[in-house]
Amino acid sequence: MKITRMHGAGGKLMQELIEKVILGNLELTSVEGGVGLRELDDGGTVPLGDREIIFTIDGHTVKPIFFPGGDIGKLAVCGAVNDIAVMGGEPVALSLSLIIPEGFPIDKLDRIMKSINETSKEAGVPIITGDTKVSNVDDIVITTAGIGITERGKVIRDSGMKERDVIIVSGNIGEHGMTILLARENFDFKSNLKSDVAPLNKLIKKVLDSGVEVHAMKDPTRGGLASALNEMVEKSGLGINIYEEKIPISEEVQSLSEALGIDPLTVANEGKVVMAVKKEDGEKALEVLRSHPLGRNAQIIGEVVSDHKMVVMETLVGRRIIDTPMGDPIPRVC
Amino acid sequence: MKITRMHGAGGKLMQELIEKVILGNLELTSVEGGVGLRELDDGGTVPLGDREIIFTIDGHTVKPIFFPGGDIGKLAVCGAVNDIAVMGGEPVALSLSLIIPEGFPIDKLDRIMKSINETSKEAGVPIITGDTKVSNVDDIVITTAGIGITERGKVIRDSGMKERDVIIVSGNIGEHGMTILLARENFDFKSNLKSDVAPLNKLIKKVLDSGVEVHAMKDPTRGGLASALNEMVEKSGLGINIYEEKIPISEEVQSLSEALGIDPLTVANEGKVVMAVKKEDGEKALEVLRSHPLGRNAQIIGEVVSDHKMVVMETLVGRRIIDTPMGDPIPRVC
Ligand SMILES: Nc1ncnc2c1ncn2[C@@H]1O[C@H](COP(=O)(O)OP(=O)(O)OP(=O)(O)O)[C@@H](O)[C@H]1O
Ligand SMILES: Nc1ncnc2c1ncn2[C@@H]1O[C@H](COP(=O)(O)OP(=O)(O)OP(=O)(O)O)[C@@H](O)[C@H]1O
Ligand SMILES: [Mg+2]
Ligand SMILES: [Mg+2]
Ligand SMILES: [Mg+2]
Ligand SMILES: [Mg+2]
Ligand SMILES: [Mg+2]
Ligand SMILES: [Mg+2]
Repeated sequence: MKITRMHGAGGKLMQELIEKVILGNLELTSVEGGVGLRELDDGGTVPLGDREIIFTIDGHTVKPIFFPGGDIGKLAVCGAVNDIAVMGGEPVALSLSLIIPEGFPIDKLDRIMKSINETSKEAGVPIITGDTKVSNVDDIVITTAGIGITERGKVIRDSGMKERDVIIVSGNIGEHGMTILLARENFDFKSNLKSDVAPLNKLIKKVLDSGVEVHAMKDPTRGGLASALNEMVEKSGLGINIYEEKIPISEEVQSLSEALGIDPLTVANEGKVVMAVKKEDGEKALEVLRSHPLGRNAQIIGEVVSDHKMVVMETLVGRRIIDTPMGDPIPRVC
Repeated sequence: MKITRMHGAGGKLMQELIEKVILGNLELTSVEGGVGLRELDDGGTVPLGDREIIFTIDGHTVKPIFFPGGDIGKLAVCGAVNDIAVMGGEPVALSLSLIIPEGFPIDKLDRIMKSINETSKEAGVPIITGDTKVSNVDDIVITTAGIGITERGKVIRDSGMKERDVIIVSGNIGEHGMTILLARENFDFKSNLKSDVAPLNKLIKKVLDSGVEVHAMKDPTRGGLASALNEMVEKSGLGINIYEEKIPISEEVQSLSEALGIDPLTVANEGKVVMAVKKEDGEKALEVLRSHPLGRNAQIIGEVVSDHKMVVMETLVGRRIIDTPMGDPIPRVC
């Protein structure tokens, strides 16, 4: 058995690989009282006195490394910041590991570092340590780990949604993945599409500070909204009903999805959050989100139910089960 | 200007690159009161109440990925554990990022994960979060970040050595780098050489718990003992005198170094620690180190002086300045 592209795509094949080869081999996977690897949340936690340290890591390889709306540096900072923020933590420090291919132009590295700096300032999170290696990689690989802090016991888990909660998405879906796909495949589309990559910590803090009860939260990255909602369902034992017409999506992503035969629900986002919020707080959450530029297209897209344990979408032509994708969305036209 | 191998080799070229392109671009590089990126220590720190969180990251690419004495998985765990331990912290959690090439055999991944598990158990440190990507890399890349804890203000800095301190090395030098070189180049040497890769947290804890005053500490990885000692010199503004005959080195590494024309002081170690210890505590530190299997060849190799700001080695034929290497040691015979 060999590793295929699909094993790294945030879908079922990746989940299986992680469960079998990673969880299946590791015996020490948590710190007492903290969120461990087996929870498969956006990060793990280490309780310390009356606080809880949130710890996360993401490796970033993207082709092309510069794309409309961002670059691998911005992506790497946002990846760590957002996984901490969706666990309810305030990111306090990042670490930055670079694996650079021989012959990589130093001025490209400089551009990437400038972008990392801008994003670190936008998020307000310093980079306090790092590592640099030169090796045989096709293009630069950036791995960022992050630590965040929250009050002990205040970590927001994937598993936390409750019956009747509303499901909120902070804005238009599919923009990162679709931008990358277009940039990579050199399709003959004229497009103004840009990646949504953005640090979400300030947006999310605003929601949490408003007193809204957020029961579960994820950043719908690889695997898109479809993967994120399914994880919330599997981990909570409850179901989710969503409404197609409520899902925020730009006309551009919509028509590209149709043209390419891709389900936009399975396309990656890098600047969106999906949350399960106490029903009574739903409108308030929406209002707070919409008052921030990164949340202006936020929508309540559905609710949590207990009569099934799936993600079900109501469309104009009937109900459809939204499954976790196997791997990357593959354009039907290629 | 382009990136060359030497930019990733732990020597002067890497230092220059980091200072210019990384430090030169980043504006947020520390958390108030903590050790920041500008200190260029083994990691950074985040003060939290009466504790200090130590944070570190290392990317690991090694060819071959399985080598005598270890493999990339063991290396990745030890890399993070040791950078925390040499800052005086107790490692409490690791994160594990994998970048896997397409076509990589899953049974190799399984072997690596088993080795990661064994090392995590040996060190007593859990892996609480991770990430898996599939991308165009020549071979698997493993990046580990780690967090450790110590009492606030108890962080042991590279810069901390004091006049009259003794310099101690925990065992034979050069074994990791030399093993990799032999495995890679397919030299025609018969050799029993093995990498020294090992988690040092328990050894170091033993020393610290014994009450010995350790003023500065580093793991002499890339760039070897020569880089580590020079960093301690540059950061403290003091000098170090060492004695060639005191430096612990196996006959095998010694004769290979001579044959290949490589200075063993510049060769990487992955299971050694170098410390500056209060003179009066030197013998005790040595005793504690030697009572642990990973420290049985520990030696006092020199002392800290204030009459120069270099690393100077006394040899049978006179004194020699030990400089920071430019980059990787290159065998003269290739
Ligand atoms: N190599 C690995 N070692 C340990 N745990 C892993 C590894 N790869 C993934 N995991 C765990 O699997 C879960 C899912 O990982 P995933 O990377 O999909 O989460 P994410 O970071 O939120 O998503 P994305 O990487 O798309 O941003 C997480 O709990 C993560 O800690
Ligand atoms: N890409 C980077 N971004 C930020 N800081 C970096 C980066 N690369 C290196 N550094 C910093 O430079 C210093 C030296 O790094 P280096 O990797 O040599 O330390 P180390 O991890 O102790 O050694 P090794 O990697 O050989 O184990 C550290 O303080 C590290 O935080
Ligand atoms: Mg996530
Ligand atoms: Mg992530
Ligand atoms: Mg390093
Ligand atoms: Mg180090
Ligand atoms: Mg290191
Ligand atoms: Mg991830």
